[in-house]
Amino acid sequence: MDRAPVISVIGTSTASPEIYELAREVGRLLAGAGCTVVCGGRGGVMEGVCRGVSERGGISVGLLPGDIREANPYVTIPLSTGLGEVRNFAVASAGEAVISIGGAFGTLSEIGFALRSGKPVIGLKTWRISEDGKSPTPMIEASTAWEAVRLALEKTGRDFHGRG
Amino acid sequence: MDRAPVISVIGTSTASPEIYELAREVGRLLAGAGCTVVCGGRGGVMEGVCRGVSERGGISVGLLPGDIREANPYVTIPLSTGLGEVRNFAVASAGEAVISIGGAFGTLSEIGFALRSGKPVIGLKTWRISEDGKSPTPMIEASTAWEAVRLALEKTGRDFHGRG
Amino acid sequence: MDRAPVISVIGTSTASPEIYELAREVGRLLAGAGCTVVCGGRGGVMEGVCRGVSERGGISVGLLPGDIREANPYVTIPLSTGLGEVRNFAVASAGEAVISIGGAFGTLSEIGFALRSGKPVIGLKTWRISEDGKSPTPMIEASTAWEAVRLALEKTGRDFHGRG
Amino acid sequence: MDRAPVISVIGTSTASPEIYELAREVGRLLAGAGCTVVCGGRGGVMEGVCRGVSERGGISVGLLPGDIREANPYVTIPLSTGLGEVRNFAVASAGEAVISIGGAFGTLSEIGFALRSGKPVIGLKTWRISEDGKSPTPMIEASTAWEAVRLALEKTGRDFHGRG
Repeated sequence: MDRAPVISVIGTSTASPEIYELAREVGRLLAGAGCTVVCGGRGGVMEGVCRGVSERGGISVGLLPGDIREANPYVTIPLSTGLGEVRNFAVASAGEAVISIGGAFGTLSEIGFALRSGKPVIGLKTWRISEDGKSPTPMIEASTAWEAVRLALEKTGRDFHGRG
Repeated sequence: MDRAPVISVIGTSTASPEIYELAREVGRLLAGAGCTVVCGGRGGVMEGVCRGVSERGGISVGLLPGDIREANPYVTIPLSTGLGEVRNFAVASAGEAVISIGGAFGTLSEIGFALRSGKPVIGLKTWRISEDGKSPTPMIEASTAWEAVRLALEKTGRDFHGRG
Repeated sequence: MDRAPVISVIGTSTASPEIYELAREVGRLLAGAGCTVVCGGRGGVMEGVCRGVSERGGISVGLLPGDIREANPYVTIPLSTGLGEVRNFAVASAGEAVISIGGAFGTLSEIGFALRSGKPVIGLKTWRISEDGKSPTPMIEASTAWEAVRLALEKTGRDFHGRG
Repeated sequence: MDRAPVISVIGTSTASPEIYELAREVGRLLAGAGCTVVCGGRGGVMEGVCRGVSERGGISVGLLPGDIREANPYVTIPLSTGLGEVRNFAVASAGEAVISIGGAFGTLSEIGFALRSGKPVIGLKTWRISEDGKSPTPMIEASTAWEAVRLALEKTGRDFHGRG
């Protein structure tokens, strides 16, 4: 079976309008490139990306901490995992690459987990992290939605020809 | 958004041919009834149900314990959760109802978790459970794939008109 | 380092007085035999066993789902895991053997997980489980606290000379 | 019951001799102050802190990802949680305060989780984290083992009179 690439998108549940629109644009570009998007299924960045995906007819899976009624209105397949905050691990682990938009402490734990598992992590207006006295982490900084999606696909061995 | 009902299917990764075919039939009936199916994404019952779903053009989500290479060839959206056996919780929790086919110890923990969260659990050739000196558990026994799917839909407030 | 054996005790948070006293006696016997006890740290069976352990000056570790204020007053080391119900996995996995007293659906998921990981599980007034059309599970039934503790120690390669 | 304060110590499993000795000193100071220490139970920083605790006759609990044979030789109560990397959540959540020594990606996820749950996090030669374009995180930097322990106790409402 030729499956759609799975890309995880992580980010705060209380996004500013600017961050929300950035997430939405990432969603549109990922769906346009044929990706399935995994996120936490709630508000803020998660809603933005699901909305963008739905605008291009794509599929998003939302791994919710608890009740399905917490799902944003745009997620295609909301799954109530019953895992509470542990679901962050699953979100960060599920994609071939992870795009982190904006930031909150939950996002930080997801970045740590994704980096640990060796996945490419693309940062867009997110945490800056450095080890004490050492070179910066392998998190890759992007400055636009388009660049973030291009990097996510490139790092998982694919070309990206999407329009911004 | 009018979403497809999500039904979880749980069961052993080393199914007999009889149990495998039972799972496949459950998958066909669920997809035919417009349900999205969540399972553990691996072999045995999980492969059977994903295969049945794919034969009717439906969508299955496989919550894998670890690497995506463990996915069976029929799962539509394989997600490597990184959760190990903890992913069982997420599978049992994700659906509005749970159908348990055949049995193994992992399945038993999933049944316990689903019952605890108050979901309808339909058993098909699976564990029989009783509390010491008390009446049997609220697990509902079905004797055919058709009956299991009908009960799962009925218990979540839907009609089922599928053909066996 | 010569460490104390770790034994897990699982059971309902709403125990009858009879079940509570049974758990307390198990706690006294385990502490008397030099074991460290792991449980879920809350009420009912968990409180009973921690109370028994404290009466013999032993150590109990309580793996709590959330806030530390949920701990029963007798647990020596309460740990708020933040894992919610996922902490059941950790409780069932932590001991070299598992004693299950009374029963609830959470207990059932713990039994399933412990059996799956190949640990000896001793049942005391707990679930009875059988696979459809197959022989009973390897859960070992005990009829007294004394027998449960003796079996737990025996199955982990130790003698038990405790008094009832 | 008047319980010992529980403090979590997190850090890399492959520590330099300098970081190892720092962790050991933190362990000695925490045990000397009457704290129970929770960590991941393995090598590096985890071994260092358990060793220091054991040198002062204190109690350490090691929440291991899997098999108990992975425990370092100094941990008092090793618990094999069966949770894999999810055990990081439990370690970060268990203490009233968290001391992070050195750094690795797993540590980063633990810091994120601890900050999210509102706990004081004391950093000692660990990650530096800042939100894009915003003020630094509430992680508190310490420059010596003594200062880290003092801050951990102070932030949880206790005095610290330990000697360095």
